[in-house]
Amino acid sequence: MDIQSENRCFGGVQGVYTHASATCKCDMTFGLFLPEEAKDGPVPLLWYLSGLTCTHENAMTKAGAQAWAAEEGIALVFPDTSPRGAEVADDEAYDLGKGAGFYVNATQSPWAPHFSMWDYVATELPALLGETFALDMERQAITGHSMGGHGALTLAMGLPGRFRSVSAFAPIANPTASDWGRKQLSAYLGDDETAWAPHDATLLMEANGFDGPILTDTGTADQFIDLLRPEALANAVAKRRQQAVLRLQPGYDHSYFFVASFMEDHVRFHADHLMA
Amino acid sequence: MDIQSENRCFGGVQGVYTHASATCKCDMTFGLFLPEEAKDGPVPLLWYLSGLTCTHENAMTKAGAQAWAAEEGIALVFPDTSPRGAEVADDEAYDLGKGAGFYVNATQSPWAPHFSMWDYVATELPALLGETFALDMERQAITGHSMGGHGALTLAMGLPGRFRSVSAFAPIANPTASDWGRKQLSAYLGDDETAWAPHDATLLMEANGFDGPILTDTGTADQFIDLLRPEALANAVAKRRQQAVLRLQPGYDHSYFFVASFMEDHVRFHADHLMA
Repeated sequence: MDIQSENRCFGGVQGVYTHASATCKCDMTFGLFLPEEAKDGPVPLLWYLSGLTCTHENAMTKAGAQAWAAEEGIALVFPDTSPRGAEVADDEAYDLGKGAGFYVNATQSPWAPHFSMWDYVATELPALLGETFALDMERQAITGHSMGGHGALTLAMGLPGRFRSVSAFAPIANPTASDWGRKQLSAYLGDDETAWAPHDATLLMEANGFDGPILTDTGTADQFIDLLRPEALANAVAKRRQQAVLRLQPGYDHSYFFVASFMEDHVRFHADHLMA
Repeated sequence: MDIQSENRCFGGVQGVYTHASATCKCDMTFGLFLPEEAKDGPVPLLWYLSGLTCTHENAMTKAGAQAWAAEEGIALVFPDTSPRGAEVADDEAYDLGKGAGFYVNATQSPWAPHFSMWDYVATELPALLGETFALDMERQAITGHSMGGHGALTLAMGLPGRFRSVSAFAPIANPTASDWGRKQLSAYLGDDETAWAPHDATLLMEANGFDGPILTDTGTADQFIDLLRPEALANAVAKRRQQAVLRLQPGYDHSYFFVASFMEDHVRFHADHLMA
């Protein structure tokens, strides 16, 4: 594993690391914030999954999460959103290919086998993190923004017992019924929609829900809200009587200014469950 | 004035605006954060001047200042660091020309008349802000990073009575004795070093000091610390018995991770004097 950078940050260290990924069959880069407490022993870990067009870097530099994670003594990991490199397929559209892995394991050409972001985030990266850093992998939580909110919700529900709590900023909540979803799930997984269901937070909520608390924030002025379909997830949450707080925030849009505005609430929400 | 964007942010609005600058003789863009309180009347204003290579955007997206400004009810303005546009001279080096205005009024070719960042920040932009937005221009403070820390300190000392308080992150503290300074002051102002003195925080401190409190932070692991010369300013501050808090922060470097780590302290420091 190569250290790209390590910067002192809120008393801890914001690092960027690159490793050869057996899952994605390319080099992968991630950001990791370790609070000061990690010097004395393992700390809990909050995953932050990013949205379309992002790398590991966007949220690490723009979401303002380290301030609150440092206060709570929680580590943050910022994975990339897709495989990378010259040998990896891409598409001219911003919402397919590089920067748009959608947290699934592609089965279709030309995306398989590199586009295996589910396995990367669910299996390979946690194993690497647990072996390498002072992290208590028994205390994990997950959040994300937009496509990453979709990833957070689907991984949390798809891996029961893994995450104590899940939250999301403006998640793509019902991709099987959205142009942010149908296009990508079809490209990566093929046309058989039964393969899509494990990657739709609303369908997962209808099927099984989540064994823990959920927090979501979506801006009422989000320019993509019709693609996000928060109403579908809200309906499913309410039907299931799922423990959850679903917030519609007046006037906020889809930007990192929105994410940063509510980051403290999300980190403290997870801290309540990680530090208990 | 053109609105480039307005995003709801921490209950207020983060805007980006472009206007025709008579001073710089080109279009200039700045960021302005207005807290929620600005809806009810004028609020105090904290200037943030950015460093080499930056535009109005870097600190606006990476310094995390809005969180604290919103709590305190203070506006933030993020000016650009130089004139812009095809008609504006530039240099191949990152530290001269565009992105490197050094907050002076250039007198030398090819930099004059566009490179007039002192007058832009001292005169034109405050007039525009005061006319256009709900800002209490009787309550201003100033901060900045690196070259912007130089700008903040020199403007604060060069405009007595304008700013109630001044702070800086890793400021270029003694440019007349540094490669971050001699090259630029020579290019912009010519070889007569008497013209440089009003643009050196250490020399200004020796001459007159500042009629108010000063806060500076510099990382002990700052990779540019030999160019910043915090020791020269510290010496001058102590000699003058200037009211000041000069902090050397162990292990921090020159990055925005350093800036973000101490932003809360700086905003609260200014708030103590702006809200009094």
